[in-house]
Amino acid sequence: MDTILIQAEELLETAVAILGKIGVPVDQARTIASVLVQADLRGIGSHGVLRLPAYVHKVQCGLLETDTRLTVIEERKATVLLDAGGGFGPVAAAEAMLRAIGKAKELGMGSAAVRNASHFGIAAYYARLAVEEGLIGVVISNAAASMAPFGGVQPMLGTNPICVGIPTGKEPAILLDMASSVVARGKIRLAQREGKSIPEGWALDASGVPTQDPDEAIAGTLLPIGGPKGYGIALVNDILSGILTGSPSSVEVRSVHDLKNPSPVGFFLQAIDLSAFCDPELFYERVDALTENLRASERADGVSRIYTPGEPEWERERERRENGIPIGPKVMESLRDLADELGVQMDL
Amino acid sequence: MDTILIQAEELLETAVAILGKIGVPVDQARTIASVLVQADLRGIGSHGVLRLPAYVHKVQCGLLETDTRLTVIEERKATVLLDAGGGFGPVAAAEAMLRAIGKAKELGMGSAAVRNASHFGIAAYYARLAVEEGLIGVVISNAAASMAPFGGVQPMLGTNPICVGIPTGKEPAILLDMASSVVARGKIRLAQREGKSIPEGWALDASGVPTQDPDEAIAGTLLPIGGPKGYGIALVNDILSGILTGSPSSVEVRSVHDLKNPSPVGFFLQAIDLSAFCDPELFYERVDALTENLRASERADGVSRIYTPGEPEWERERERRENGIPIGPKVMESLRDLADELGVQMDL
Repeated sequence: MDTILIQAEELLETAVAILGKIGVPVDQARTIASVLVQADLRGIGSHGVLRLPAYVHKVQCGLLETDTRLTVIEERKATVLLDAGGGFGPVAAAEAMLRAIGKAKELGMGSAAVRNASHFGIAAYYARLAVEEGLIGVVISNAAASMAPFGGVQPMLGTNPICVGIPTGKEPAILLDMASSVVARGKIRLAQREGKSIPEGWALDASGVPTQDPDEAIAGTLLPIGGPKGYGIALVNDILSGILTGSPSSVEVRSVHDLKNPSPVGFFLQAIDLSAFCDPELFYERVDALTENLRASERADGVSRIYTPGEPEWERERERRENGIPIGPKVMESLRDLADELGVQMDL
Repeated sequence: MDTILIQAEELLETAVAILGKIGVPVDQARTIASVLVQADLRGIGSHGVLRLPAYVHKVQCGLLETDTRLTVIEERKATVLLDAGGGFGPVAAAEAMLRAIGKAKELGMGSAAVRNASHFGIAAYYARLAVEEGLIGVVISNAAASMAPFGGVQPMLGTNPICVGIPTGKEPAILLDMASSVVARGKIRLAQREGKSIPEGWALDASGVPTQDPDEAIAGTLLPIGGPKGYGIALVNDILSGILTGSPSSVEVRSVHDLKNPSPVGFFLQAIDLSAFCDPELFYERVDALTENLRASERADGVSRIYTPGEPEWERERERRENGIPIGPKVMESLRDLADELGVQMDL
C-alpha cells in the first residue's frame, strides 16, 4: 500500500464522525478534528490524525471525558483560569483563547489559563485564532519530561513549547511554534527506525554524554536549544502552564502515550490587541516590509530562500488544500481499523 | 594597575554624582546608577558602570535627554504605551514596569510598552521589580542588528533579549535573562583581544560560513540559538518591542555605541499577578520544590552543580555585596577621567 492523498475536508469529516461515535458533541468534535487536520495540512504529521486512535482509546479506557465543559476557577478582568474537567485539550484551548481575545479587545490584553485538559495538539492552531482577529496570540504548554536541566542527565522537563502568532498585511502571518529542544523526540525515533545516526547536538545518552546513536539518545535525554537558554525556556514554560495553573509540572506530567492514566497538562494563553499600542494598519505595513527585507537579504551558499517563522507551513498548507494531504499506509490502516471498530462509514 | 574591589554602595554614589553633574535629576540618577551597579554585582560587566562614560558623552552630544519624562501615548485598562522623549531607558523601563505591576494587581495582568528611550541595560533589573512584589515579570527589547535570519548572511536582527522573572519562596527567584544569540558580541571581542579562536557554533563569517576566527566573526554575524528558533525569538522580540511600540526595528535600530546619533529602542514589559490564578503560597512552594528537584537530579560527569536561571548571578551578587565588585584598571581609569572632567569628587 502506498501513501495516498486525501482532501482536508474528507479527512475532517471522517475524524468528526469517529469522535461523534464515541460521544463527543459535534461542535467539539469539529474543533478537535480541525486541530488534527490543520497539523497534517501544515506538515506536522506527528500531531495530525495519526493521534486519533490514541484519543479514542483514552476515551474508551475512561481516561478522557467526551464532553469538555469548562469551569471558571478564578477570574479577574484581564485573566481567567479554567478547569477542563479532564476533557479534550483542543476544545479547552480554543475556548480559552476566545476568552483571552475577548478580554484583549476590551482591555488591551488578556490571558486565559487552563488546567485538567489533555494535550492540545499544535499550539499554532490557537495562536492563529488570535491572528485571524487581527491580534497577537501567545500559547504555552508543558509536556512529559524528556530533557535534562543544563548540566544534568535525568529527564526533568518537557520540550515545553511556546507559540507566538503575529498578524500581517499581505504577507503570511508569523507563527513561531517551537519546542525548547533542538529536535522533537519523533525525529530521533525516525532515525532509529531507518537505522541512521543522528547529528551531533541533538541528544545525550543516559550518562549525559553527547551521542549520535539514536538508541542511546532515546534512552537518554533531548538537548535544549542554546544549552542553558533552552533549559530556561522549558522551565519558564513549565511554571507558567504547570504550576501557575495548578497542573502537573516537571516529572509529574504523564506522557500523552500513557494509556493507563489520564495525562492532564496546563496551558497559558494570551492575546494582545494591536490597537491598544499603535495603528494596526501601520503595524501590518511595517511587519510586511520587515518580512520582505528579511526575504531579500543576502543568502548563505546553497540557501534558496529565507523564510519567516511559519511561512514554510503556510506554503505547505496551501499546496495540500489544493492537492490533498499525503497519508501513509500505516496511519491509513489505523484510521480504517478505527472506523471499522466503531462502525463509521469511511469513504477514503 | 590591578583590578580593585569597590563596594556597591560607593560605586552607586559615584555614578549618581556623575549623572547628577550632567543634569540628571537625583531620583532618576539613582535608578540609572542602580541598574548599572546591579549589572556589575551580577557579573554582567558589559552592562555595568563600564557604560557610564558613553551615557555621559551621549548627553554631552545632545543625543540623550537628562530629564526623562514619560508621556502616555495610548492607554487601555490593561495596557499603556509610553513615550520617553529621547530620555534614559532605565528610568523609562522602571517606571513602565511599575505601571504594569499596578495594572496586574488590579486586573490580573498588565503590559506597558515604551518608545523613544535609550538602551535600558540589563533586562533582569525590571523583571526583578515585579518579582519583589511577588509577581511574574516579562521584559523584552530590541537592539542593533548583528544576527542574520536563518539561512542568511546579512545582520538583520539584534540579539533581542527576553527576560522572565518568577518569584519563589526560600529559593532564589528565577531570572531567565537571555539574548537570542548563542553568545554576546562581547565574548567574541574578548577572544579577538586575547588572540584566541572561538568555539564552533558561535558565528558565521561575512559569506555565511561557520567560523572559529574571531576577526571573521566580527565582520560576519552572530548565530541564533537553535537556528530557526533563535531567529524566530529575535524576530518576535523585534516586532513586540520595535514595531508594536512605534520604535525602530531590524536594521533601523542604531548601535548603543553610536555617538553621532540618538539610538532609541522600544521595550515591551508585562506583569502577571499570581493570585489571579492560584494561591501564591502554594506557587512558591511548588517552584521551590521544582528548584530542589532540578538541583538534586543526576549530574553529567564533571558538573558540580545544577542551577536554575539567574541562580549563579544571585550567588555572585551576594558575594560581591560582601566583598566588593572587582573593577578592572581600564574601567577604573575611564571613571576617574570622567569624574575629573566633570569635577566630581571620587574617593574610590
